[in-house]
Amino acid sequence: MEREELFRKISVENEKKMVLLVLDGLGGLPVKGRTELETARTPNLDLLASESELGLSHPIAPGITPGSGPAHLSLFGYDPLKYEIGRGVLEALGVGVAIGADSVAVRGNFATLENGLISDRRAGRIPSEKNREIIAYLRERIKKIEDIEIGLFPGEEHRFVLVMSGAGLSDQLSDADPEAVGRPILYARAKSEAAAKTARVVNLFIDRLTAELAAFRPANTCLLRGFAQYPAIPSLGELFKLKAAAIAVYPMYKGLAQLVGMDILETGRSIQDQTASLKRHYADYDFFFMHVKKTDSYGEDGNFAGKVSVIEEFDHWLPEILELTPDVLVVTGDHSTPAVLKAHSWHPNPVLLKAAFQRQLPPDGRFLDVITVADHPAQGSGKAGVVDRRYKFCEKTCAGGVLGTFSAMDVLPLMMANALKLKKYGA
Amino acid sequence: MEREELFRKISVENEKKMVLLVLDGLGGLPVKGRTELETARTPNLDLLASESELGLSHPIAPGITPGSGPAHLSLFGYDPLKYEIGRGVLEALGVGVAIGADSVAVRGNFATLENGLISDRRAGRIPSEKNREIIAYLRERIKKIEDIEIGLFPGEEHRFVLVMSGAGLSDQLSDADPEAVGRPILYARAKSEAAAKTARVVNLFIDRLTAELAAFRPANTCLLRGFAQYPAIPSLGELFKLKAAAIAVYPMYKGLAQLVGMDILETGRSIQDQTASLKRHYADYDFFFMHVKKTDSYGEDGNFAGKVSVIEEFDHWLPEILELTPDVLVVTGDHSTPAVLKAHSWHPNPVLLKAAFQRQLPPDGRFLDVITVADHPAQGSGKAGVVDRRYKFCEKTCAGGVLGTFSAMDVLPLMMANALKLKKYGA
Repeated sequence: MEREELFRKISVENEKKMVLLVLDGLGGLPVKGRTELETARTPNLDLLASESELGLSHPIAPGITPGSGPAHLSLFGYDPLKYEIGRGVLEALGVGVAIGADSVAVRGNFATLENGLISDRRAGRIPSEKNREIIAYLRERIKKIEDIEIGLFPGEEHRFVLVMSGAGLSDQLSDADPEAVGRPILYARAKSEAAAKTARVVNLFIDRLTAELAAFRPANTCLLRGFAQYPAIPSLGELFKLKAAAIAVYPMYKGLAQLVGMDILETGRSIQDQTASLKRHYADYDFFFMHVKKTDSYGEDGNFAGKVSVIEEFDHWLPEILELTPDVLVVTGDHSTPAVLKAHSWHPNPVLLKAAFQRQLPPDGRFLDVITVADHPAQGSGKAGVVDRRYKFCEKTCAGGVLGTFSAMDVLPLMMANALKLKKYGA
Repeated sequence: MEREELFRKISVENEKKMVLLVLDGLGGLPVKGRTELETARTPNLDLLASESELGLSHPIAPGITPGSGPAHLSLFGYDPLKYEIGRGVLEALGVGVAIGADSVAVRGNFATLENGLISDRRAGRIPSEKNREIIAYLRERIKKIEDIEIGLFPGEEHRFVLVMSGAGLSDQLSDADPEAVGRPILYARAKSEAAAKTARVVNLFIDRLTAELAAFRPANTCLLRGFAQYPAIPSLGELFKLKAAAIAVYPMYKGLAQLVGMDILETGRSIQDQTASLKRHYADYDFFFMHVKKTDSYGEDGNFAGKVSVIEEFDHWLPEILELTPDVLVVTGDHSTPAVLKAHSWHPNPVLLKAAFQRQLPPDGRFLDVITVADHPAQGSGKAGVVDRRYKFCEKTCAGGVLGTFSAMDVLPLMMANALKLKKYGA
């Protein structure tokens, strides 16, 4: 039996609530002996960690650094090597375009055509403002080609996204990009018979756009790369019988959540806003995905202190989430973004899982930072004898946790099991 | 190379002896801060654990709660998602029926037919004694239908098992069960052409049985559910070149062992009896599977103290097994059955592996209960300096063991490796 077939078969609905809190790029590497997590003052996370199952998860496999797309698919229980999300679709998600199952998306560059040859593949990096103006102009003029609807969405500088919608489209096309200057426009070629119509529409689009933009030099033609269809991915409802909602600020994460059938909840941009949104909608769903972006953004910038401050901000609002007493709570990252690397990395994600039927803490010897509650009475459990000292929630403590090191694809199944949403397999 | 192909290729026979001791449902969850294993007084297991490799194993995958069938297949080195054991086969195994590769098994209910409609799907839950009487009566009267041999086996109350044996059978049939009262007999339908003959035989059987039982009201017809063929599973001999024997008390486990080609050794019902059987046959096989059932039974009943007592009883007889000095010894569970859940669970199994070429113990900091041998001279190793303190054999200690957390499918390969029964793969 295939993995997905198994989940379709054994998953059941019940009233239990699961909350997945993702701090993007959470895992880090030490600077002056301490990682971002180890540096952050996180009394609430530490107390929670002391009452939780801990472990480390690999988004894809040991050594593999993931993009946000596959890293989140894995967290949502999907095999990220089975479902590839094409660059065009990710770009569309990134600019906030909801695309459907009958659409093909592709990312575009405005470019410069001179005497029939491409002289600048980025049209002199026109200002984003100019880009928006050109897109508005084109939207009025190119609405349909044959029976296919044309959607155009501005990105930064010279970048845009083209979304074609209608019957009989395929993404089996070669890129319409000569990949070097001094060459003429390269048209897309169909890689299979099924893509012939799409190739025709794409190439008519390039000609129409080039004709319309004659007066817009340097942005007087375009290159198109990464044709991609919306992946046919079963929803969280189909696979796991979940009614799921996402609380995310950035378009790409909303798009990824939509891709797997989550509802997108309205929220402001701060962690406080996101927490408020979770509380407001808590009665309406049984699975919540809340995405905190800035840990990753600061990591990518190499801003160690900035990343530490976002972790501390998250820690500050955590008690409000805990007040909801979800049946299963996970705090983790989608991938690591060590500030010292200024990039995503392959290091596994710290995972914290809190639920009713959880295992005990590992032996005392593994406590890393022992903090007695007497020192921090405000953060104590209040229950005598329940937690009188605590872990530091960090990569090292998680490496010694009872969950061990596992695949991030198993995070959702573990949550489901702890929520008693998975029946026994076999007799 | 496929996993099974690998083992066929690299496994070799040698004289080394391997013993797999399975305490069914061994893993648990804490009650008053201690699990069943942590509560049990197990000086022998603790001493053994202090000299062994420890770890945790997932029967199927993180979060998946297995039935006994898939959990044991995994322990025997098979992929439990590849070999599904149908309900009918498990029921047959459960009542002690040995079924062959050309058989189809199905579980039956005696039911009540009134004016052509099913009025009771369980025939008023007739006493098991009455069931045996009816089965004996039918056995005399229905021995064959066409060229297919009919085997009938009583279960508890209204339940029985039908085993059909002969050429050209298939289990691709819909259930012969209307699933509600007030409806007529529902005959089985073939889901494919290959099952046409089986459907005909099944439906003739239902008519014959109903005619024979006219005077046996309320048990005057039957329902049949879960047609299943013996899975075509390669034996432990074929895959691993093992000569294997099982020492199990309960029919289903004997059946599962037979399914993978083990001989079933005669034994009394107690752990002492099972240990005696192991000693009696020790010269005749190179792999022994000994199955202790009651840990699971008490777990399912929510009887924490009962489960603890079975673990202690096992600990008492363990030295007799150790006296055989097997080359490789494993003590583990097939799945967890925490008394607090009164059910199988998804928590991984404690694993203890003792062999000649094992790795070192984990760091001192992880010792849980330190017991000096001076306190328990009778259980000491007798060798000065070899073991002067010991682990508590339990879930926590195993979570920190050198084996880490792994798939139960790898238990047998690990045993084989430690018995030097696996050649190098590749040059």
